[in-house]
Amino acid sequence: MTTDVSKYRLNHTMYRIKDPKASIGFYTEALGMKLLDTMHNEAAKFSLYFLGYEDPASSGVARLARQGVLELTHNHGTEADAAFAYDTGNGDAGGYGHIAVTVDDLDAACERLDKLGVRFIKRPTEGRMRHIAFVADPDGYRVELLANPAHAA
Amino acid sequence: MTTDVSKYRLNHTMYRIKDPKASIGFYTEALGMKLLDTMHNEAAKFSLYFLGYEDPASSGVARLARQGVLELTHNHGTEADAAFAYDTGNGDAGGYGHIAVTVDDLDAACERLDKLGVRFIKRPTEGRMRHIAFVADPDGYRVELLANPAHAA
Repeated sequence: MTTDVSKYRLNHTMYRIKDPKASIGFYTEALGMKLLDTMHNEAAKFSLYFLGYEDPASSGVARLARQGVLELTHNHGTEADAAFAYDTGNGDAGGYGHIAVTVDDLDAACERLDKLGVRFIKRPTEGRMRHIAFVADPDGYRVELLANPAHAA
Repeated sequence: MTTDVSKYRLNHTMYRIKDPKASIGFYTEALGMKLLDTMHNEAAKFSLYFLGYEDPASSGVARLARQGVLELTHNHGTEADAAFAYDTGNGDAGGYGHIAVTVDDLDAACERLDKLGVRFIKRPTEGRMRHIAFVADPDGYRVELLANPAHAA
Protein backbone atom coordinates (compact mmCIF):
# COMPACT_ATOMS: atom_id res chain seq x y z
CA MET A 1 0.00 0.00 0.00
CA THR A 2 1.26 3.46 -0.81
CA THR A 3 -0.01 6.92 -0.07
CA ASP A 4 1.01 10.23 -1.64
CA VAL A 5 0.90 13.10 0.87
CA SER A 6 0.99 15.63 -1.96
CA LYS A 7 -2.63 14.62 -2.59
CA TYR A 8 -3.75 15.36 0.96
CA ARG A 9 -6.08 18.34 1.50
CA LEU A 10 -7.26 20.23 4.55
CA ASN A 11 -10.90 19.61 3.77
CA HIS A 12 -12.90 20.88 6.73
CA THR A 13 -13.13 22.15 10.28
CA MET A 14 -15.92 20.91 12.54
CA TYR A 15 -17.58 22.40 15.58
CA ARG A 16 -20.87 21.76 17.34
CA ILE A 17 -23.75 24.20 17.30
CA LYS A 18 -26.82 24.56 19.49
CA ASP A 19 -29.37 25.75 16.91
CA PRO A 20 -28.99 25.06 13.18
CA LYS A 21 -31.54 27.68 12.14
CA ALA A 22 -29.52 30.40 13.83
CA SER A 23 -26.15 29.10 12.65
CA ILE A 24 -27.07 28.33 9.04
CA GLY A 25 -28.67 31.78 8.86
CA PHE A 26 -25.52 33.40 10.18
CA TYR A 27 -23.06 31.58 7.94
CA THR A 28 -25.12 31.88 4.76
CA GLU A 29 -26.87 35.26 5.09
CA ALA A 30 -24.33 37.23 7.10
CA LEU A 31 -21.07 35.59 6.02
CA GLY A 32 -22.17 34.63 2.52
CA MET A 33 -21.30 30.94 2.58
CA LYS A 34 -23.26 28.33 0.61
CA LEU A 35 -24.86 25.32 2.25
CA LEU A 36 -23.02 22.59 0.32
CA ASP A 37 -24.45 19.46 1.89
CA THR A 38 -26.61 18.21 4.76
CA MET A 39 -26.74 14.83 6.50
CA HIS A 40 -29.40 13.83 9.01
CA ASN A 41 -29.00 10.81 11.25
CA GLU A 42 -32.34 10.36 12.99
CA ALA A 43 -31.27 7.16 14.76
CA ALA A 44 -28.26 8.79 16.39
CA LYS A 45 -30.09 12.14 16.66
CA PHE A 46 -27.62 14.42 14.99
CA SER A 47 -27.35 16.42 11.79
CA LEU A 48 -24.33 17.66 9.87
CA TYR A 49 -24.28 20.84 7.82
CA PHE A 50 -21.43 21.53 5.39
CA LEU A 51 -20.81 25.11 4.29
CA GLY A 52 -18.21 26.93 2.23
CA TYR A 53 -17.47 29.56 -0.34
CA GLU A 54 -17.76 28.82 -4.02
CA ASP A 55 -14.43 30.19 -5.15
CA PRO A 56 -13.21 29.38 -8.68
CA ALA A 57 -11.01 26.59 -7.27
CA SER A 58 -13.94 24.95 -5.47
CA SER A 59 -16.88 25.50 -7.78
CA GLY A 60 -18.06 22.19 -9.14
CA VAL A 61 -15.46 20.34 -7.06
CA ALA A 62 -16.82 17.51 -4.90
CA ARG A 63 -17.14 18.44 -1.24
CA LEU A 64 -14.49 15.93 -0.23
CA ALA A 65 -12.05 17.07 -2.91
CA ARG A 66 -12.01 20.75 -1.94
CA GLN A 67 -10.63 22.83 0.93
CA GLY A 68 -12.26 25.53 3.04
CA VAL A 69 -15.33 23.62 4.26
CA LEU A 70 -17.02 24.30 7.61
CA GLU A 71 -18.87 21.33 9.14
CA LEU A 72 -21.43 22.19 11.81
CA THR A 73 -22.72 19.34 14.00
CA HIS A 74 -26.14 19.64 15.61
CA ASN A 75 -27.04 17.19 18.36
CA HIS A 76 -30.83 17.19 18.24
CA GLY A 77 -32.56 18.83 21.17
CA THR A 78 -29.91 21.27 22.31
CA GLU A 79 -31.80 24.10 20.58
CA ALA A 80 -34.76 23.58 22.95
CA ASP A 81 -32.65 23.63 26.14
CA ALA A 82 -32.40 27.25 27.28
CA ALA A 83 -29.53 26.48 29.67
CA PHE A 84 -27.41 24.66 27.10
CA ALA A 85 -24.31 26.35 25.71
CA TYR A 86 -21.13 25.04 24.11
CA ASP A 87 -17.68 25.95 25.37
CA THR A 88 -16.36 27.83 22.34
CA GLY A 89 -12.72 27.42 23.30
CA ASN A 90 -11.51 30.87 24.30
CA GLY A 91 -11.73 30.64 28.10
CA ASP A 92 -9.00 29.50 30.50
CA ALA A 93 -6.83 26.85 28.84
CA GLY A 94 -9.21 26.81 25.90
CA GLY A 95 -7.37 25.51 22.88
CA TYR A 96 -9.66 26.30 19.99
CA GLY A 97 -9.46 29.86 18.71
CA HIS A 98 -11.36 30.81 15.57
CA ILE A 99 -11.93 30.44 11.89
CA ALA A 100 -10.90 33.33 9.66
CA VAL A 101 -12.69 34.69 6.60
CA THR A 102 -10.79 36.89 4.19
CA VAL A 103 -12.88 39.66 2.63
CA ASP A 104 -12.44 42.13 -0.21
CA ASP A 105 -12.83 45.27 1.95
CA LEU A 106 -12.68 45.01 5.72
CA ASP A 107 -14.44 48.28 6.56
CA ALA A 108 -17.25 47.64 4.08
CA ALA A 109 -17.64 44.07 5.31
CA CYS A 110 -17.86 45.25 8.92
CA GLU A 111 -20.37 47.96 8.03
CA ARG A 112 -22.56 45.37 6.32
CA LEU A 113 -22.34 42.95 9.28
CA ASP A 114 -23.16 45.79 11.68
CA LYS A 115 -26.34 46.54 9.71
CA LEU A 116 -27.26 42.84 9.91
CA GLY A 117 -26.98 42.99 13.69
CA VAL A 118 -23.96 40.70 14.01
CA ARG A 119 -22.18 40.94 17.36
CA PHE A 120 -18.65 42.31 17.21
CA ILE A 121 -15.96 41.10 19.59
CA LYS A 122 -13.37 43.47 18.09
CA ARG A 123 -13.94 46.15 15.50
CA PRO A 124 -11.06 47.21 13.22
CA THR A 125 -10.81 50.49 15.16
CA GLU A 126 -10.47 48.72 18.52
CA GLY A 127 -7.14 47.51 19.89
CA ARG A 128 -3.82 47.73 18.12
CA MET A 129 -4.56 45.56 15.11
CA ARG A 130 -6.34 47.79 12.60
CA HIS A 131 -6.36 45.16 9.86
CA ILE A 132 -8.53 42.56 11.58
CA ALA A 133 -11.93 42.26 13.22
CA PHE A 134 -13.65 39.53 15.21
CA VAL A 135 -17.35 38.74 15.22
CA ALA A 136 -19.26 36.13 17.21
CA ASP A 137 -21.46 33.49 15.62
CA PRO A 138 -24.76 32.52 17.33
CA ASP A 139 -22.97 30.15 19.74
CA GLY A 140 -20.24 32.68 20.43
CA TYR A 141 -17.58 31.03 18.25
CA ARG A 142 -15.12 33.62 17.01
CA VAL A 143 -14.86 34.44 13.32
CA GLU A 144 -11.91 36.62 12.34
CA LEU A 145 -12.33 38.93 9.37
CA LEU A 146 -9.32 40.20 7.50
CA ALA A 147 -8.68 41.76 4.15
CA ASN A 148 -7.47 39.64 1.27
CA PRO A 149 -4.86 41.76 -0.52
CA ALA A 150 -5.64 40.01 -3.81
CA HIS A 151 -9.16 41.43 -3.70
CA ALA A 152 -8.44 44.93 -2.41
CA ALA A 153 -9.69 47.71 -4.68
CA MET B 1 -18.57 51.32 0.76
CA THR B 2 -19.44 48.02 -0.85
CA THR B 3 -18.38 44.47 -0.25
CA ASP B 4 -18.82 41.42 -2.49
CA VAL B 5 -19.40 38.26 -0.47
CA SER B 6 -18.60 36.12 -3.51
CA LYS B 7 -14.97 37.13 -2.90
CA TYR B 8 -14.93 35.90 0.69
CA ARG B 9 -12.83 32.84 1.50
CA LEU B 10 -12.57 30.51 4.47
CA ASN B 11 -8.87 31.17 4.89
CA HIS B 12 -7.81 29.46 8.11
CA THR B 13 -8.61 27.70 11.36
CA MET B 14 -6.65 28.58 14.50
CA TYR B 15 -5.94 26.64 17.65
CA ARG B 16 -3.35 26.97 20.38
CA ILE B 17 -0.52 24.51 20.85
CA LYS B 18 1.77 23.79 23.78
CA ASP B 19 4.99 22.92 21.95
CA PRO B 20 5.71 24.11 18.39
CA LYS B 21 8.52 21.61 17.82
CA ALA B 22 6.14 18.72 18.45
CA SER B 23 3.24 20.25 16.51
CA ILE B 24 5.19 21.47 13.47
CA GLY B 25 6.84 18.06 13.32
CA PHE B 26 3.48 16.32 13.41
CA TYR B 27 1.75 18.48 10.80
CA THR B 28 4.67 18.57 8.36
CA GLU B 29 6.32 15.16 8.76
CA ALA B 30 3.33 12.98 9.64
CA LEU B 31 0.50 14.82 7.85
CA GLY B 32 2.60 16.22 5.00
CA MET B 33 1.65 19.90 5.30
CA LYS B 34 4.04 22.69 4.37
CA LEU B 35 5.03 25.42 6.82
CA LEU B 36 3.78 28.41 4.81
CA ASP B 37 4.61 31.28 7.13
CA THR B 38 5.79 32.08 10.67
CA MET B 39 5.32 35.20 12.81
CA HIS B 40 7.11 35.79 16.12
CA ASN B 41 5.99 38.49 18.53
CA GLU B 42 8.65 38.63 21.23
CA ALA B 43 7.04 41.59 23.03
CA ALA B 44 3.71 39.80 23.43
CA LYS B 45 5.47 36.42 23.78
CA PHE B 46 3.63 34.43 21.15
CA SER B 47 4.39 32.89 17.78
CA LEU B 48 2.09 31.97 14.91
CA TYR B 49 2.72 29.11 12.51
CA PHE B 50 0.73 28.82 9.28
CA LEU B 51 0.55 25.43 7.57
CA GLY B 52 -1.28 23.97 4.60
CA TYR B 53 -1.18 21.73 1.58
CA GLU B 54 0.17 22.93 -1.72
CA ASP B 55 -2.65 21.81 -3.94
CA PRO B 56 -2.80 23.10 -7.53
CA ALA B 57 -5.37 25.72 -6.47
CA SER B 58 -3.13 27.05 -3.69
CA SER B 59 0.38 26.76 -5.08
CA GLY B 60 1.82 30.21 -5.55
CA VAL B 61 -1.32 31.81 -4.11
CA ALA B 62 -0.70 34.28 -1.28
CA ARG B 63 -1.46 32.86 2.15
CA LEU B 64 -4.34 35.27 2.67
CA ALA B 65 -5.85 34.56 -0.74
CA ARG B 66 -6.11 30.80 -0.32
CA GLN B 67 -8.22 28.37 1.68
CA GLY B 68 -7.23 25.38 3.79
CA VAL B 69 -4.71 27.03 6.12
CA LEU B 70 -4.06 25.87 9.69
CA GLU B 71 -2.83 28.56 12.09
CA LEU B 72 -1.15 27.30 15.27
CA THR B 73 -0.63 29.80 18.09
CA HIS B 74 2.16 29.20 20.60
CA ASN B 75 2.16 31.24 23.79
CA HIS B 76 5.80 31.16 24.81
CA GLY B 77 6.63 29.13 27.88
CA THR B 78 3.80 26.60 27.81
CA GLU B 79 6.18 24.00 26.36
CA ALA B 80 8.28 24.12 29.56
CA ASP B 81 5.32 23.67 31.93
CA ALA B 82 4.83 19.95 32.44
CA ALA B 83 1.37 20.43 33.95
CA PHE B 84 0.07 22.65 31.15
CA ALA B 85 -2.45 21.22 28.68
CA TYR B 86 -5.03 22.81 26.40
CA ASP B 87 -8.68 21.80 26.45
CA THR B 88 -9.01 20.39 22.96
CA GLY B 89 -12.77 20.71 22.82
CA ASN B 90 -14.14 17.18 22.96
CA GLY B 91 -15.06 16.89 26.63
CA ASP B 92 -18.42 17.76 28.25
CA ALA B 93 -20.05 20.65 26.38
CA GLY B 94 -16.90 21.06 24.33
CA GLY B 95 -17.80 22.79 21.09
CA TYR B 96 -14.73 22.35 18.94
CA GLY B 97 -14.48 19.01 17.17
CA HIS B 98 -11.70 18.46 14.66
CA ILE B 99 -10.06 19.29 11.39
CA ALA B 100 -10.33 16.77 8.57
CA VAL B 101 -7.69 15.80 6.05
CA THR B 102 -8.73 13.98 2.89
CA VAL B 103 -6.23 11.42 1.67
CA ASP B 104 -5.75 9.37 -1.48
CA ASP B 105 -5.95 5.95 0.24
CA LEU B 106 -7.23 5.71 3.81
CA ASP B 107 -5.72 2.32 4.66
CA ALA B 108 -2.31 3.23 3.25
CA ALA B 109 -2.39 6.59 5.01
CA CYS B 110 -3.21 4.94 8.33
CA GLU B 111 -0.51 2.31 7.87
CA ARG B 112 2.04 5.07 7.25
CA LEU B 113 0.90 7.07 10.31
CA ASP B 114 1.03 3.92 12.43
CA LYS B 115 4.66 3.37 11.43
CA LEU B 116 5.41 6.98 12.39
CA GLY B 117 4.02 6.32 15.87
CA VAL B 118 1.00 8.60 15.56
CA ARG B 119 -1.68 7.95 18.19
CA PHE B 120 -4.98 6.69 16.79
CA ILE B 121 -8.29 7.62 18.42
CA LYS B 122 -10.27 5.53 15.91
CA ARG B 123 -8.91 3.22 13.26
CA PRO B 124 -10.95 2.55 10.12
CA THR B 125 -11.69 -0.96 11.42
CA GLU B 126 -13.06 0.33 14.75
CA GLY B 127 -16.65 1.41 15.22
CA ARG B 128 -19.29 1.51 12.54
CA MET B 129 -17.75 4.05 10.19
CA ARG B 130 -15.28 2.13 8.06
CA HIS B 131 -14.49 5.12 5.84
CA ILE B 132 -12.98 7.42 8.46
CA ALA B 133 -10.22 7.42 11.05
CA PHE B 134 -9.22 9.82 13.80
CA VAL B 135 -5.70 10.51 15.03
CA ALA B 136 -4.53 12.80 17.83
CA ASP B 137 -2.01 15.59 17.34
CA PRO B 138 0.61 16.25 20.06
CA ASP B 139 -1.87 18.31 22.12
CA GLY B 140 -4.64 15.76 21.63
CA TYR B 141 -6.56 17.75 19.00
CA ARG B 142 -8.48 15.41 16.76
CA VAL B 143 -7.62 15.08 13.08
CA GLU B 144 -10.09 13.12 10.98
CA LEU B 145 -8.78 11.22 7.98
CA LEU B 146 -11.06 10.28 5.15
CA ALA B 147 -10.64 9.21 1.56
CA ASN B 148 -10.99 11.74 -1.23
CA PRO B 149 -12.92 9.92 -3.98
CA ALA B 150 -11.24 12.08 -6.62
CA HIS B 151 -7.87 10.60 -5.67
CA ALA B 152 -8.84 6.97 -5.16
CA ALA B 153 -6.89 4.52 -7.29
